[in-house]
Parts: sequence; structure tokens; C-alpha cells
Amino acid sequence: MTSEAPTRSYRRLGVEERRRQLLEAALLLFAHRAPEEVSLDDVAEAAGVSRPLVYRYFPGGKQQLYDASLRSAAAELQQCFAEPPQGPLSRRLGRALDRYLAFVGRHDAGFSALLRGGSVVETSRASAIVDEVRRAAAEHILSHLDVEEPGPRLRMTVRTWITAVEAASLIWLDEDKQPPVDELRDWLVDQFTAGLVATAGRDPQTAAVVRNALALESAEGPLGALVRGVLPAVATADHLLRPGAAD
Amino acid sequence: MTSEAPTRSYRRLGVEERRRQLLEAALLLFAHRAPEEVSLDDVAEAAGVSRPLVYRYFPGGKQQLYDASLRSAAAELQQCFAEPPQGPLSRRLGRALDRYLAFVGRHDAGFSALLRGGSVVETSRASAIVDEVRRAAAEHILSHLDVEEPGPRLRMTVRTWITAVEAASLIWLDEDKQPPVDELRDWLVDQFTAGLVATAGRDPQTAAVVRNALALESAEGPLGALVRGVLPAVATADHLLRPGAAD
Repeated sequence: MTSEAPTRSYRRLGVEERRRQLLEAALLLFAHRAPEEVSLDDVAEAAGVSRPLVYRYFPGGKQQLYDASLRSAAAELQQCFAEPPQGPLSRRLGRALDRYLAFVGRHDAGFSALLRGGSVVETSRASAIVDEVRRAAAEHILSHLDVEEPGPRLRMTVRTWITAVEAASLIWLDEDKQPPVDELRDWLVDQFTAGLVATAGRDPQTAAVVRNALALESAEGPLGALVRGVLPAVATADHLLRPGAAD
Repeated sequence: MTSEAPTRSYRRLGVEERRRQLLEAALLLFAHRAPEEVSLDDVAEAAGVSRPLVYRYFPGGKQQLYDASLRSAAAELQQCFAEPPQGPLSRRLGRALDRYLAFVGRHDAGFSALLRGGSVVETSRASAIVDEVRRAAAEHILSHLDVEEPGPRLRMTVRTWITAVEAASLIWLDEDKQPPVDELRDWLVDQFTAGLVATAGRDPQTAAVVRNALALESAEGPLGALVRGVLPAVATADHLLRPGAAD
């Protein structure tokens, strides 16, 4: 045993192993700080290596490390959406949201900085990666709705809900992860249901989707709770049913 | 009359007048092209002046012109939200949306470039201006809902709907302004109503807002059409009302 060994131990890693180790260190830093608050020195220190070594693996420096971290995070996020096409839709959506919100919680500051924009590392590449994740989320949901060719209204309903999920996630992070994550998930499922039902009023394809989806739901599930919770608030709306009737 | 007069006529404008003229030319260019496709030469040409003259008024060049255009557009957008607090909420919201969507239609490419991010002129200043407009929109809506202190669930419902409006506007621009603007407006009002009603199921404050709002609506208005449109799609959902009952 020589006394030099421990300080030089990083030389023993293979190229791919080293690359992965640096990326993991960068990901952890970018997850919890705004990118402008992460320096290459921070990455080197977190990985226990020298700054020149980081540059050898990532000659593009911080921007390259950020892009690589982003791609890695996007791949992880897309895993969240995978859900077998069985059971009530509200349960499937709830489980995917649980995974998504856990991801958001684990990448709080980085998630905010990325989606808020105006960041120093905001690039069209970063925006393209974010858009790709959004598109993947929309395709996943549409596949669960089980329609051959989703029309523009159904697509718009799904896509605007995905944006609402992002907005709600940012508000949730801003408010120190309040409400509790289970409540946020239930509320987001409710909002999806409500948006779909409202679109069903104008779009026959969405109406068919809603009828099929409701048949899979049970009174004990999230939709039962939603219906029973909402009824008292709309019980006074009888006058909306009869156009031309005197009030 | 000298033959030189017409080409030098721009010298006659006062400082404020000239500044305004340059800004108007820039606004028109930034409205219909992505900012990276607008050069200072374009602004000079559109205003019929020389490039050095543009620099004299905007020493910060394109970035300064873009920021000033953005502030001017934000002020115009905020005017869209002003609506007297009378009549059914769905009508008030519909009128504000008509003005908002007309603004979006008039600033198509600039609106997309700004909200999509990843642009070369994307800055934290630009993001701050966009956020200010969003906050103003939320405050306007909450003031119409007539609650003293809106709680977190009501605020989140309003704020996520505003993001949904932005997302829907971007999709609408992408799809060559389809569906027709009146249909988009009605759909957005429906989505707002649906989101609010769903939140009412879990939040007493929102439930009170919904009850008060429904009392102002009529069967002939947008909410009457929504309720009658939605009923057939949810008519088969009786089984959600009775937990524990056999199907």
C-alpha cells in the first residue's frame, strides 16, 4: 500500500464509468440548484476529481453537462408515464401522477429553473427536450383513452391539462410542497376528468371516451368521490336545464 | 421646395415622437416574426430611418427594442382583462377572452416565440414581464369571483387555467387559428367552469363561489349550453353515486 493511492483512486475508473459518475454528480447538483448556481468546480468537487478531468470528459463545459443531465432526466421522466392499460382510468392516471410528482419533488430547483425559462442555460435544445417529454405524456394519455385517431378537441384537452400539471407542480414547489402530494394528485385527476367531461359537451368523440371511461369507474374510486363532492355545489343549477322557462 | 426634403423628413420629429415611431415599427416586426428573425436594419427600414438613428434612440440595440416592445405589448394585454363586475361570470370571462384572443391573433409569431422560450432574446427580464401579466390576469379573475381572501385551491384553479389558456392559444396558432376563435373562446369558458366545479368538490370556499356564480347564469347562456351538452355523456354514471351498492 502506498500513501498516494487514495487521492489518485479516480484514475482507476473506465471511460464510461467515469462519464457516468460525473453526470450523476452534475444531475444531483442541477436538480437542487438553479443552473446559474452550479459551477464546473462544484461538479469536480462533488465527483472528487479535478476540474481539468471534468473538461476532458465534457469539453463543452457546463452547457454540455447541463444538456446531458437534462437528457438523462427526460428519459427518467418518460419512464413515469408507463402504465398498463387496465382498470379505471382515474387509477392509472393517479399512479402515473404519483411517479411524476415524486420526480418533481426530487428535482425541485432544477425543475423550476428549467420550466420558468429566462435561465442562462435556457437554449432551444433545452426547450426541444421539454417539448418532447410533453408530447410523450400526451401520447401516453391518448393511448389510454383508446381512440384510433384523436381529434383536435380531444388532443387540445389533453395537452392543456399537461400544461396545467406543470403549472400546478411549479406552484406546489413554490409553496413548500403544499398541499400534501396525495391531495395534489387527486385534484389533478379531478381536473382531468372535469376538462374531459366539459369537452364531451361539444365533441362526440370525447363524449364516447367519457362514456367508456365512466363505465370503468366505481363509486369507491376517485370519480365517485368527485361526483358526490360536486353535487351539493351544483344542486342549485336546475334553472340552467330549461331554456325559455321562467325563473 | 427642395428635392432633398422628403428623404430627410424624419429629422423633423420630436424626441418622444421619434421614439414612439421606432417602437411601433419594432412592435409590428416582433409581433409577426420570431425575434431572431428581426434585425436592427429591418427596424430602421420599416421606420424609414437610418440604422445609426435607431442606435441613438436605443443604444442597447435589438435587446433594448425587444424589451421595450414587450413592455408595451404587456401593457396592451393587461387592458384586455378590464371588465365591469356585472352580469353572468361566463359572459364577463367570454368578453375578456375575446379581447385576449384578438391580441394573440395580432401578435402571432411574437407571442409564440416569447412563450415557447429558448429564444435568443429570452431573458429573465422577459420572463418577469410575462409572469407579471399572468399575475394580473389571476387577480382580475379572482376579483370577479368576489371572495375576500382566495385560498390556495381557488388560486391554483385560476392560475392553472391561465396556463391552459396560454397553451391552447399556442396550439391554436400552430393549427392556423383553428378552431374558429368563437369556438375556442367558448371551450375555454367551459374549461374554466369545469375546473372550478371540480375544485368545489374538495374546497368549501370554491363551492360557495360556484353556487353564487351559477345563480347569475341563465339556461340561454354558455353554462346552460354546457350543462345540456354534458348531460348525455354522464347520464350513465349513476353507479358512481352509491358507494357499496351492487352494480
